[in-house]
Amino acid sequence: MKFETPVPVTEIAAQIGAKLVGNTSLLATGLNEIHKVENGDISFVDFEKYYNASLNSKATIIIINKEVECPAGKALLVLNDPFSAYVSLVKKYRPFVPSHVPISDTAVIGEGTIIQPNVFIGNHVRIGKNCLIHPNVTIYDHTIIGDNVIIQAGTVIGADAFYFKKRPEREAWYDKLESCGRVIIEDDVEIGASCTIDKGVSGDTIIGRGTKFDNMIHIGHGAVIGKNCLFAAQVGIGGKAIIEDGVILWGQVGVSKDLTIGKGAVVLAQSGVPSSLEGGKTYFGYPAEDARQKRRELGWIKRIPEIWQRINNQ
Amino acid sequence: MKFETPVPVTEIAAQIGAKLVGNTSLLATGLNEIHKVENGDISFVDFEKYYNASLNSKATIIIINKEVECPAGKALLVLNDPFSAYVSLVKKYRPFVPSHVPISDTAVIGEGTIIQPNVFIGNHVRIGKNCLIHPNVTIYDHTIIGDNVIIQAGTVIGADAFYFKKRPEREAWYDKLESCGRVIIEDDVEIGASCTIDKGVSGDTIIGRGTKFDNMIHIGHGAVIGKNCLFAAQVGIGGKAIIEDGVILWGQVGVSKDLTIGKGAVVLAQSGVPSSLEGGKTYFGYPAEDARQKRRELGWIKRIPEIWQRINNQ
Amino acid sequence: MKFETPVPVTEIAAQIGAKLVGNTSLLATGLNEIHKVENGDISFVDFEKYYNASLNSKATIIIINKEVECPAGKALLVLNDPFSAYVSLVKKYRPFVPSHVPISDTAVIGEGTIIQPNVFIGNHVRIGKNCLIHPNVTIYDHTIIGDNVIIQAGTVIGADAFYFKKRPEREAWYDKLESCGRVIIEDDVEIGASCTIDKGVSGDTIIGRGTKFDNMIHIGHGAVIGKNCLFAAQVGIGGKAIIEDGVILWGQVGVSKDLTIGKGAVVLAQSGVPSSLEGGKTYFGYPAEDARQKRRELGWIKRIPEIWQRINNQ
Repeated sequence: MKFETPVPVTEIAAQIGAKLVGNTSLLATGLNEIHKVENGDISFVDFEKYYNASLNSKATIIIINKEVECPAGKALLVLNDPFSAYVSLVKKYRPFVPSHVPISDTAVIGEGTIIQPNVFIGNHVRIGKNCLIHPNVTIYDHTIIGDNVIIQAGTVIGADAFYFKKRPEREAWYDKLESCGRVIIEDDVEIGASCTIDKGVSGDTIIGRGTKFDNMIHIGHGAVIGKNCLFAAQVGIGGKAIIEDGVILWGQVGVSKDLTIGKGAVVLAQSGVPSSLEGGKTYFGYPAEDARQKRRELGWIKRIPEIWQRINNQ
Repeated sequence: MKFETPVPVTEIAAQIGAKLVGNTSLLATGLNEIHKVENGDISFVDFEKYYNASLNSKATIIIINKEVECPAGKALLVLNDPFSAYVSLVKKYRPFVPSHVPISDTAVIGEGTIIQPNVFIGNHVRIGKNCLIHPNVTIYDHTIIGDNVIIQAGTVIGADAFYFKKRPEREAWYDKLESCGRVIIEDDVEIGASCTIDKGVSGDTIIGRGTKFDNMIHIGHGAVIGKNCLFAAQVGIGGKAIIEDGVILWGQVGVSKDLTIGKGAVVLAQSGVPSSLEGGKTYFGYPAEDARQKRRELGWIKRIPEIWQRINNQ
Repeated sequence: MKFETPVPVTEIAAQIGAKLVGNTSLLATGLNEIHKVENGDISFVDFEKYYNASLNSKATIIIINKEVECPAGKALLVLNDPFSAYVSLVKKYRPFVPSHVPISDTAVIGEGTIIQPNVFIGNHVRIGKNCLIHPNVTIYDHTIIGDNVIIQAGTVIGADAFYFKKRPEREAWYDKLESCGRVIIEDDVEIGASCTIDKGVSGDTIIGRGTKFDNMIHIGHGAVIGKNCLFAAQVGIGGKAIIEDGVILWGQVGVSKDLTIGKGAVVLAQSGVPSSLEGGKTYFGYPAEDARQKRRELGWIKRIPEIWQRINNQ
């Protein structure tokens, strides 16, 4: 997420009550978690094992819970609870604003686009030309939709990321990371009925041009789906997964978070993908492996009784 | 889909700019894909390997991309792109008409039927007597619902078929086959919350009398579900599948398209059904097979270490 | 379900046309299925094999289809069809009342709670303070929601239980058990988008304090989910399952009905849980077993060809 205008790091330090270390004349350009951070952005780190990754990332300003050596040209914001400080900045710079009408006055809707009854369109949403949004669809604030997009009924675009910090010392353990990312749906996409596409924690969830989703597909926060993909019904994609162009996922496939499925891969129905897959191949099973190999494995399982017979007859 | 009144084949030829070959005095009675076509209907074919199936089907008028010999009593409509010509006819004879109110004036709703708030009911929908439609349900145009039907909240009836033609020469590869089929829900059916039942591409998706669905069930385009079936939550059924009477599917079962599950079959939870199953039996696993056989297989897998021991001790 | 004021058993007997046997001066305090019944409640039994369980349960008044010996201090209501008699009592004491506005006048909504557009809130719903209910959510009658609860868009809280009695002698086989239970969502819970949480048949479905659900999660009737649980997307939980505190279920896990998952258990993605699991361990596969054990099993399957080689070379 980018600020509308850059904010002096001294102002940020004052807002969250942090000790400012390093370059005090910096301007913060945005707010981003470690996976999406860009030069100029603020990020946060609260586990010592991630200090190096964070300090060496593109983040220019790091909220951190220990005063360590500040890399040249950067700034540290030191305080006890970086997670809560980061969340307070999200709430300040991307506040939740309740809607009092089903279609916000701040939404921009292109020529030729049809919005059916009972649709909710939040604040600062932009929808392109010649789209068709079917009934009972929900489009959260800040979503961006291209031209010629069709969204079937009941679908939810831009719900909050499922992302929590565990605080087992409290009665209610999980502290919500407020999301400030968006969903971006490119031109010529079709989304089926009752799908859910979550916004990114700080970056964007992207559905690439020409991709088509069947019904009840779940896309986790910050996932990036390529162009011209086909997902059959009830597929689920974990947060920050990268699905490259032309990938085909059959029904009920589950894909874990933080991995990549390469260009043109095909994953057969009900398979589970726990880690990255190379493009251009067909996969099957849990864990998803080369489909021919996996089919041979199923054949071998059926031969175990024969093997048992053989060793008993020897 | 049937036309309201039959249309001269010469008129159809002019509409799509096709060369008319064969019987030029025919009247077209409707528009149907190859799987659902009836005598008098128009169908289309654009792959040479399907020419014979199409020419020998019940279709009386065939849109085709090559001038072949026309079977006696039929007509061919020859042009370069049968898919697009067919889609243009769907758009002409079953045009999408936006709704400006949540419940269309053209909907017919029977005595004693309760429609809860925030429900959308499209054009030309017919709902029988003593039904209960819970909030936030979407019922697309042309859906037909019998008597004593209960639909729980958030369900979507009649969304478009998930059916595309690949055109890899374009930037956005997939060309949408506009659907003109319907959903027909017979008497005494109950549909759970947040289900999606897609309309047929050209024929009807049917949910048979007395069938009961739990929540989040997906039914693909043109599937025909028998009478008195029970589907547990999160079941998914592919397009044009035939599920005969009294079939029981437990939670998260996935059923592929274009197959038949016979009368009274039971498929246990999380199983995957890639091809047809005989009725009257209990199935389990992926691919779903006789449940007892499959359980024995799980037992054999656990004995592999013992087998390994045995051959190493010999 | 409890009656607002206790009802004399003689009145109940007259309402359903039953023969009253045993203590005729009892007051009925509520209506409950066998799994949830408490002292003073009415329950029903219609299969001889369950007679003992029912007569020895906490039920004080039992609707039964045979005149058996009445336990001391209890009453029997004897008639031919206990199921229908019970359903008629549910309909009398917890009648369905249609809503004519999206947010019922009888709903009580706490200070600081934000209700976004297109939400349905049924009769006698109670929502606590500082909640955020996103668009197109449906909250059925009698639901109780605590403080600081977030419900993402499209979710359905309190749909009817999926519970039917088979009457194969009729054309439509399945007779609906009308549910009179509720959903109770405790403080600090977050429910993702397009989830469905069914009401209990007669008792309550409970989501414990601090628990967080991702999108498209299904919770069956009367399930009791503990505190501080995390469920990833597309998880399904069967009716009356008990999930203890701190349990983590990853994506697409399926859990059967009538079982217990112990405190702190973790079940990995796509696993299926057909029976109870001890707490404090990590599980995987179908049927879900110790994750390390199951991974070894996957390794052994890959070694079958090697075993085959070995016995052929001996």
